[in-house]
Amino acid sequence: MSRLLRGVGAAAVVGARGLSLGPGARGGSSRRFCSRSRQALPSPSPAGTENGRRRSPLAWTVGAAAAAAAAGLAGLGLARRAEMEALQPDDGGDDDDLARRCAGFMAPPVSGLAELRGRRGAMQSRMEVLIMETQGQVCRALAQLDRGASFTVDRWERKEGGGGISCVLQDGEVFEKAGVNVSVVYGHLSEEAAQQMRSRGKSLKANNGKLPFCAMGVSSVIHPKNPNVPTIHFNYRYFEIEEADGTKQWWFGGGTDLTPTYLNKEDAVHFHKTLKEACDKHGPALYPKFKKWCDDYFYIKHRGERRGIGGIFFDDLDSPSKEEVFQFVQSCAQAIVPCYLPIVEKHCHEKFTPEEKLWQQIRRGRYVEFNLVYDRGTKFGLATPGSRIESILMSLPLTARWEYMHSPPENSREAEILEVLRHPKDWVH
Amino acid sequence: MSRLLRGVGAAAVVGARGLSLGPGARGGSSRRFCSRSRQALPSPSPAGTENGRRRSPLAWTVGAAAAAAAAGLAGLGLARRAEMEALQPDDGGDDDDLARRCAGFMAPPVSGLAELRGRRGAMQSRMEVLIMETQGQVCRALAQLDRGASFTVDRWERKEGGGGISCVLQDGEVFEKAGVNVSVVYGHLSEEAAQQMRSRGKSLKANNGKLPFCAMGVSSVIHPKNPNVPTIHFNYRYFEIEEADGTKQWWFGGGTDLTPTYLNKEDAVHFHKTLKEACDKHGPALYPKFKKWCDDYFYIKHRGERRGIGGIFFDDLDSPSKEEVFQFVQSCAQAIVPCYLPIVEKHCHEKFTPEEKLWQQIRRGRYVEFNLVYDRGTKFGLATPGSRIESILMSLPLTARWEYMHSPPENSREAEILEVLRHPKDWVH
Repeated sequence: MSRLLRGVGAAAVVGARGLSLGPGARGGSSRRFCSRSRQALPSPSPAGTENGRRRSPLAWTVGAAAAAAAAGLAGLGLARRAEMEALQPDDGGDDDDLARRCAGFMAPPVSGLAELRGRRGAMQSRMEVLIMETQGQVCRALAQLDRGASFTVDRWERKEGGGGISCVLQDGEVFEKAGVNVSVVYGHLSEEAAQQMRSRGKSLKANNGKLPFCAMGVSSVIHPKNPNVPTIHFNYRYFEIEEADGTKQWWFGGGTDLTPTYLNKEDAVHFHKTLKEACDKHGPALYPKFKKWCDDYFYIKHRGERRGIGGIFFDDLDSPSKEEVFQFVQSCAQAIVPCYLPIVEKHCHEKFTPEEKLWQQIRRGRYVEFNLVYDRGTKFGLATPGSRIESILMSLPLTARWEYMHSPPENSREAEILEVLRHPKDWVH
Repeated sequence: MSRLLRGVGAAAVVGARGLSLGPGARGGSSRRFCSRSRQALPSPSPAGTENGRRRSPLAWTVGAAAAAAAAGLAGLGLARRAEMEALQPDDGGDDDDLARRCAGFMAPPVSGLAELRGRRGAMQSRMEVLIMETQGQVCRALAQLDRGASFTVDRWERKEGGGGISCVLQDGEVFEKAGVNVSVVYGHLSEEAAQQMRSRGKSLKANNGKLPFCAMGVSSVIHPKNPNVPTIHFNYRYFEIEEADGTKQWWFGGGTDLTPTYLNKEDAVHFHKTLKEACDKHGPALYPKFKKWCDDYFYIKHRGERRGIGGIFFDDLDSPSKEEVFQFVQSCAQAIVPCYLPIVEKHCHEKFTPEEKLWQQIRRGRYVEFNLVYDRGTKFGLATPGSRIESILMSLPLTARWEYMHSPPENSREAEILEVLRHPKDWVH
């Protein structure tokens, strides 16, 4: 195994030691496709992060158990604690920032805590912690809003290398379907995936046709029930590829974008301003550039309209330095909850009509069209052998509708949003 | 304009003369995208074809008017008759087989009757008549079954060349969404479309990057409401491309396949046997070959399952001769109504549970996945500038559902059909 992948590969072994992971074989059915310890879990207690930096590495497992007990799911919580304890390394000290941050995770990290600790300075580890932390923060915030619902946490392994943690809340009171997925996968790029990358200008020189890669990211789509609450999507990812001569290519990609059923200008401004503030910390040119990239990327060409009102989007980001790009990505990830949750809170109890629900369903159809026809992440996932299809396609809404020749009347609220989807606006100036 | 396309180009002019066609400009919205004379029309009376070959060319317009009157839509019927009369050539005689066949069409043919008559021996004309006739036969049969519903007939023009007739029945008693589309388009292949064809092994030598083409076909997806009634899809098409040296490449493609929500073995046998009988008239090797091709083609790779229980599928068929392939395609087209309608009739009034409806919706989700991710026709359509998106995507169901990690219990009826989708069966031996 190449040096590039050694760390992650070893981590998978650590993970397998401590957890009740199945064979992880890819089969004809999605059920056989991945090993899973599937549990309906409450969100872990945020106490672990609230109590400051000095925290015993064990404390976070207590936090999770306490939250489980509060939700009447102590049994499951304890099962989870047992898993967590199996990952505790022997040399953990009191001053363990890593363990403190892990307290907010939805499940033990894919690479295992010991492995992450062993290579804690490496970007692969730092990014894995960031995506796990983001998953936890978002799931917690959503679960707090949708009190009747809980996240199903699926931990899965990829036979070809790596795995992930999929958290899905389905048919809640507020959310129709909310999926937040972390994946850390590695192995060799499929020819199809390599072609996709080369078509974006990357010169990937393979060694005997092989290109070792490591990809990790957090990816989420949240579809609320109420048509007055927009759908959000975000995705932050890190890629490393090792070329034939040992050169490592690396880049970050990501973005956060909003898809409302109806336009609410105040929400649009809040959303974009929050993202702009996150970007501006790292330079004034970032938001305008990535806002435009977002409008260009989420374009449903055959409809002549964007999927939503945009946000930010970037890919292949490999300068000025790994550190600076990571800091930027971290700011973006931390902006997810503040840019979205206030909008959900504001509208989730508003009344709506069957006609508004119908328009939402038609817009959901367009969402499906974008994701299946154009989305690069979905295409990469479908083209990567051993991908976990259920995690890739959890971005699809619970329900969608296609009416032949549907066209909203002029001056309607439906026509208003269509106009913005056809001609994107500047929301922050 | 190249010799290949002359005939069709001239036809478009004839069509424009006699019909109230709009500007046909492509715009951002599907409404502006095509010119349409949109009418909810009853199916034309089959009397025109039942009264034998010796028929006045005017008789078919009377047939249409009579049917319209019967359905209480005489006004629309008469408007349609006026359109038809405008297409009658001056030299029409009593013995006009073409006019007799036109009586069963849902609208005047794309190329216009005069144009078709002028080049009646050419394959382009013969195929256009066949696809128009097939559209009429199928729409008539469906409308007879679903008495509360009527077909919306949209006649549209493609700015870049050609046009089509889309017939859609939506939210009927029996059918949730039934679309039968004819298109006759020509112009120059887009680079993307040419690439798609080259990837199938065609050496398409372009003249200054240009490849004049003509494509026509009838394409249909019929989604019934009752989960005991399967969805059917069929498509029969003819392609001509002119290479740089003037060589014409031509081929036929097509197929008919069934997508049940639940398995009914008797239906599966009836469906496949009817298709086999149509194939067997042209050689014993055809059905087995095209049955396998169908199973291979309608494969949802990322799910490890087929879309349905198959049928027949073929593409790039250019031997033994144009005439023989056309005769075969004609037999297939004539088999559509007998292979499907008895199944609809048998089950469309059966009771069903909400759980069965839910499973149907999940299967509809898979249908969407296949069509948007893999279907060659959809991809070609989306990649062809000026395509009529509403006609291409009318294949999508009215509603669909994606549940995370849905997996039917063992030994259930849902598991039974999944098993067949994963391991296709031989239904006729």
